[in-house]
Amino acid sequence: MFDALFSAPAVVEATDGRAWVRAMLDVEAALARAVAAVGLAPPAAADAIVAACGTDLVDPDELGRAAVASATPVVPLVAALRAAVPADAAAYVHLGATSQDVVDTAMMLVTGRALAPIDADLAACAARLGALAGEHRDTPQQGRTLGQQAEPTTFGAVCAGWLSAVDDARAGLARTRRTVQLGGAVGTLSAYGGHGSRVAQLVAEDLGLAPSPPWHTDRGRVAELAAALGVTAGALAKMALDVILLAQTEIGEVSEGEGGASSAMPHKRNPARAVLVTACAHRAPGLVGTVLAAMPQELQRAAGRWQSEWPTLTDLLRLVGGAAAHSRAMLAGLRVDPARMAANLRRTP
Amino acid sequence: MFDALFSAPAVVEATDGRAWVRAMLDVEAALARAVAAVGLAPPAAADAIVAACGTDLVDPDELGRAAVASATPVVPLVAALRAAVPADAAAYVHLGATSQDVVDTAMMLVTGRALAPIDADLAACAARLGALAGEHRDTPQQGRTLGQQAEPTTFGAVCAGWLSAVDDARAGLARTRRTVQLGGAVGTLSAYGGHGSRVAQLVAEDLGLAPSPPWHTDRGRVAELAAALGVTAGALAKMALDVILLAQTEIGEVSEGEGGASSAMPHKRNPARAVLVTACAHRAPGLVGTVLAAMPQELQRAAGRWQSEWPTLTDLLRLVGGAAAHSRAMLAGLRVDPARMAANLRRTP
Amino acid sequence: MFDALFSAPAVVEATDGRAWVRAMLDVEAALARAVAAVGLAPPAAADAIVAACGTDLVDPDELGRAAVASATPVVPLVAALRAAVPADAAAYVHLGATSQDVVDTAMMLVTGRALAPIDADLAACAARLGALAGEHRDTPQQGRTLGQQAEPTTFGAVCAGWLSAVDDARAGLARTRRTVQLGGAVGTLSAYGGHGSRVAQLVAEDLGLAPSPPWHTDRGRVAELAAALGVTAGALAKMALDVILLAQTEIGEVSEGEGGASSAMPHKRNPARAVLVTACAHRAPGLVGTVLAAMPQELQRAAGRWQSEWPTLTDLLRLVGGAAAHSRAMLAGLRVDPARMAANLRRTP
Amino acid sequence: MFDALFSAPAVVEATDGRAWVRAMLDVEAALARAVAAVGLAPPAAADAIVAACGTDLVDPDELGRAAVASATPVVPLVAALRAAVPADAAAYVHLGATSQDVVDTAMMLVTGRALAPIDADLAACAARLGALAGEHRDTPQQGRTLGQQAEPTTFGAVCAGWLSAVDDARAGLARTRRTVQLGGAVGTLSAYGGHGSRVAQLVAEDLGLAPSPPWHTDRGRVAELAAALGVTAGALAKMALDVILLAQTEIGEVSEGEGGASSAMPHKRNPARAVLVTACAHRAPGLVGTVLAAMPQELQRAAGRWQSEWPTLTDLLRLVGGAAAHSRAMLAGLRVDPARMAANLRRTP
Repeated sequence: MFDALFSAPAVVEATDGRAWVRAMLDVEAALARAVAAVGLAPPAAADAIVAACGTDLVDPDELGRAAVASATPVVPLVAALRAAVPADAAAYVHLGATSQDVVDTAMMLVTGRALAPIDADLAACAARLGALAGEHRDTPQQGRTLGQQAEPTTFGAVCAGWLSAVDDARAGLARTRRTVQLGGAVGTLSAYGGHGSRVAQLVAEDLGLAPSPPWHTDRGRVAELAAALGVTAGALAKMALDVILLAQTEIGEVSEGEGGASSAMPHKRNPARAVLVTACAHRAPGLVGTVLAAMPQELQRAAGRWQSEWPTLTDLLRLVGGAAAHSRAMLAGLRVDPARMAANLRRTP
Repeated sequence: MFDALFSAPAVVEATDGRAWVRAMLDVEAALARAVAAVGLAPPAAADAIVAACGTDLVDPDELGRAAVASATPVVPLVAALRAAVPADAAAYVHLGATSQDVVDTAMMLVTGRALAPIDADLAACAARLGALAGEHRDTPQQGRTLGQQAEPTTFGAVCAGWLSAVDDARAGLARTRRTVQLGGAVGTLSAYGGHGSRVAQLVAEDLGLAPSPPWHTDRGRVAELAAALGVTAGALAKMALDVILLAQTEIGEVSEGEGGASSAMPHKRNPARAVLVTACAHRAPGLVGTVLAAMPQELQRAAGRWQSEWPTLTDLLRLVGGAAAHSRAMLAGLRVDPARMAANLRRTP
Repeated sequence: MFDALFSAPAVVEATDGRAWVRAMLDVEAALARAVAAVGLAPPAAADAIVAACGTDLVDPDELGRAAVASATPVVPLVAALRAAVPADAAAYVHLGATSQDVVDTAMMLVTGRALAPIDADLAACAARLGALAGEHRDTPQQGRTLGQQAEPTTFGAVCAGWLSAVDDARAGLARTRRTVQLGGAVGTLSAYGGHGSRVAQLVAEDLGLAPSPPWHTDRGRVAELAAALGVTAGALAKMALDVILLAQTEIGEVSEGEGGASSAMPHKRNPARAVLVTACAHRAPGLVGTVLAAMPQELQRAAGRWQSEWPTLTDLLRLVGGAAAHSRAMLAGLRVDPARMAANLRRTP
Repeated sequence: MFDALFSAPAVVEATDGRAWVRAMLDVEAALARAVAAVGLAPPAAADAIVAACGTDLVDPDELGRAAVASATPVVPLVAALRAAVPADAAAYVHLGATSQDVVDTAMMLVTGRALAPIDADLAACAARLGALAGEHRDTPQQGRTLGQQAEPTTFGAVCAGWLSAVDDARAGLARTRRTVQLGGAVGTLSAYGGHGSRVAQLVAEDLGLAPSPPWHTDRGRVAELAAALGVTAGALAKMALDVILLAQTEIGEVSEGEGGASSAMPHKRNPARAVLVTACAHRAPGLVGTVLAAMPQELQRAAGRWQSEWPTLTDLLRLVGGAAAHSRAMLAGLRVDPARMAANLRRTP
């Protein structure tokens, strides 16, 4: 129920259990191709592994239950994969990798796949805001500071300000690093002989990620990603807050076209989308703090903080997805009332 | 997938979409009985409403999608309920209540239903800790401060300390207020004539909640509940951290009976349950902060912060449920090595 | 500069460096009296220690600098104390205690001393709210939900709601446990022979704290204290938010008597106190999250998380002190405009 | 006391009340020069204002107390400045600016001045880590995952990992935008005729900041700055955590050269600097969350959330300053024990 209210269908689909399993299988497939390419696995074994990875190998919830014993879904996933390929290919499954290699690389894939629809919604917001800024370049509106009428501005200037924040948020998301993770047990790529860097590079290319040395307990890039999502949520929440304030009965300068119904008061037209944006965005700062607080990870692999990143980042993507989709709908249906703006300007402060 | 890893089945079941819909229908049923009891609705209408509330009236995900337009699931829920009862009963559905009355009271029901299995797991932890404290009352163990060997203590004393924190956490959860919410549109109970307080009291009794004046934008009790859950998470995380530290290869004084497998290193026995407890608990403080930050809610009903409470409290219950269940399993299988404790005591610091 | 804006003088004075040093010396004095009372120290030694503790023994900033080497201010404080007493008394300074005993007990003293002026401000708020609730019991006011005019309520009911939240917050603060900490190096009270519990009890009585077994790494009571402060901040922030909303130019139902000036717009009357309350309270949830996240403390003494509690709790006390003092001033000068309330009620929603 | 423990002297000096007043006066001086340069003020008036800004015009604490009435320190600062210049220059003080222009631009100046010593400490950490990585390139060390011995790595690889995180953190800080704020009452630069952009550009150049359109309620850049500080704290905390773990008595592979004393156990050598780094860094995520949560700022000027940024960013700078300075000292004195590393490698896991 809450996913429908506080996220967007495309982002839920890109981040649910099936999507995580798909991403982990994509990583195992890319790894199989890479180790075959450098001669560490027979091509036939790699083909068999890739084929098995192309199927709905495991049920996500069952995988979750099976993962409890080891605290990682990769242990039962690899077991299922080994059972699904011919015996002589089984030894080449997950070759030289550690659980974290698969989960971290999958997390980067999931992130990229979720950011696509998020950015599409943000782009639509930006386009609409650009149109509104142009349309209302000369629509006078009272500026308000600390809730008090101050000096006039224009509604076009307000929209341009919102647009600038959305543009910055998109640029911030675009700057985040989505890199492959491949290091083996303790980050030394020990199982690949001299081929470690090459295997990592091939996996990265295969999956469309940037190459990187192992970053098992160097979580800056995850924290930066969370922060960029948090900044995006904040930019959208500022716009929603302004819509809520401007839509107050006593101000009435904008309203939501669809207008939310009330169960007790049929005459009301609530700023429902702005409320949903606010509800989504309000949850982001705490989640960003959780990811930042997870940065101190022990030695070569963390005992708990790393594992907390998976669902937290998933939630952040979903909530920002919800905030972006609801913002898009809010802006698409936004009704602007220049006459009311003019009337409010004439009131003595 | 993540629910299976980071929660407990009974708590997921008590907090999922179906459980929320069930709780909201329970509230509507209790309300129908109460307004009939004070003579504001015909008994037959109440009976029809109660009967309809007893069915699986709506699909939770569909309800969520239908709720987007109004930013509240109660609008489509009430519509479905009105459609499901005879025409002359429809007017008595949701009589005098506002959406928030239903959601807040449902949130209290969901909380109570989720706390039951959580407390059962905490009680099992406490029982096991009591047994361990007694069993190891005289098992000497090195005390360690800032990671350095300090002076001897006993493992029984360590377990007694863990137990004390679990007991305190349970007491804190037991102190939280679970009250009915019934105020109508703006908290004045205006639709019930002079019967408002009585209706609210009847609904509370029916649902096993405490009576209360309306608290639409007085969220202290929700914040206190979140905080008590956060304290519980912290108490369990402290125990898990100690298990992880004592299970380090070089210390080796305890280990998890089941022992988590590794995908790269079959010889390892990881403290998998302690890792999962840590991962669950690490997420709690940010969520508690989110609920606290949601306290400033506007005038008679909030535009976003209130709505953020529903999923946040749900997540908190699930994560504390996961931490409690994994702690129980961790303690049930805990292996204690008094010989290793003695050997470590003899090492020169 | 910021202390003056975002705290209250009495709370700053109760929580600054001098106050912390004073509290730590009070603990050392109480400990000296207690060990003498059970016969572990000569009365003359105790007298000398108590006398030295009564002086401004050390400069707080110098103590801070000297504390860096050991990461605890107690090491240089005890050194200074030993140097300040006769040679035959020096051995009885800090007898059987560990640094954490002194800092934790001092933290409880500082908390109690800061809560006194905070509660006085809260009590003044409550008194003023009670008067307003009575005075405006029949003053009609538009109720507003999601920013939209809904149904009428009264300003008295609004004030009664604010009062209820303040009362609950005070009750929550009053429920927090302020206990002595005395455990020695690893919590075993090993240095006192069979007198440990008695010494701890005497120190507690001397300082007006509750007795308790050692709680070096059982931080639930600190987290509960932080949470109660966070709930208080939230209750005050809700009231300030409502004042800001009701004081908007277009609503104008209340205003701050003093009215904040603007550097750019001399005609404005800003809700300055409500803004300061909001600014103080906004910082509380993150700080509460920090204290909760500090709960997992290692074995017999934490390596960093415990130390983070000292300044965080100090900040929480100061910010809640600021929020309470500014709320009191805001309410004392609040101007209520029943005519404007009536006029707004007549507007078509 | 706490500043000495949890910050660095140079950073405290760059962020205290005097530093904030200095920065605000620097902004007023730059503004006076700029408006004179475009012909909006007589050169003599600008000279008089600049001269007055060069003095210790006001006491920071007194300014804070005087700021309570308006909730901004700029109102009393401007009053003092006007009183300090000849009568015919007074009208040109603060010309066309709003309080937020001065505080935001000052905040950017304070940030730049605090980041200089922080980056110097980080650079020193990086240099030391580079040397350690080279020196111990071939020093075998046990790799540990989830607290369990896993496979060998080298201590040089560990140091290279720490270095990479520090380098990334420095790059992240260098990417943050430090821009001028100049918009006038509602961001329209209305008081400067057609000269607004030019005035803003001149002020920016004068102060060494980047030019920018007004960003009064577009707080992305502040949130990004906070996030970059949070990532830096996380990178340093990870290193400190590893030092604490490797310094455990039972592992003993590194130790702090200075070694912190204990008040109860003179034989101990605590990892005091690592503990202080941890304590500083632990506080950062909550503060970053607070800044992110402050992003939704109302219309043309926020009523509380903006004001919360000033002390929060100050605290973040101080804590990251403390973490960086203590990290530098920790690394400078770090003792590495290759023999112990070798011995631990030989232990059967």
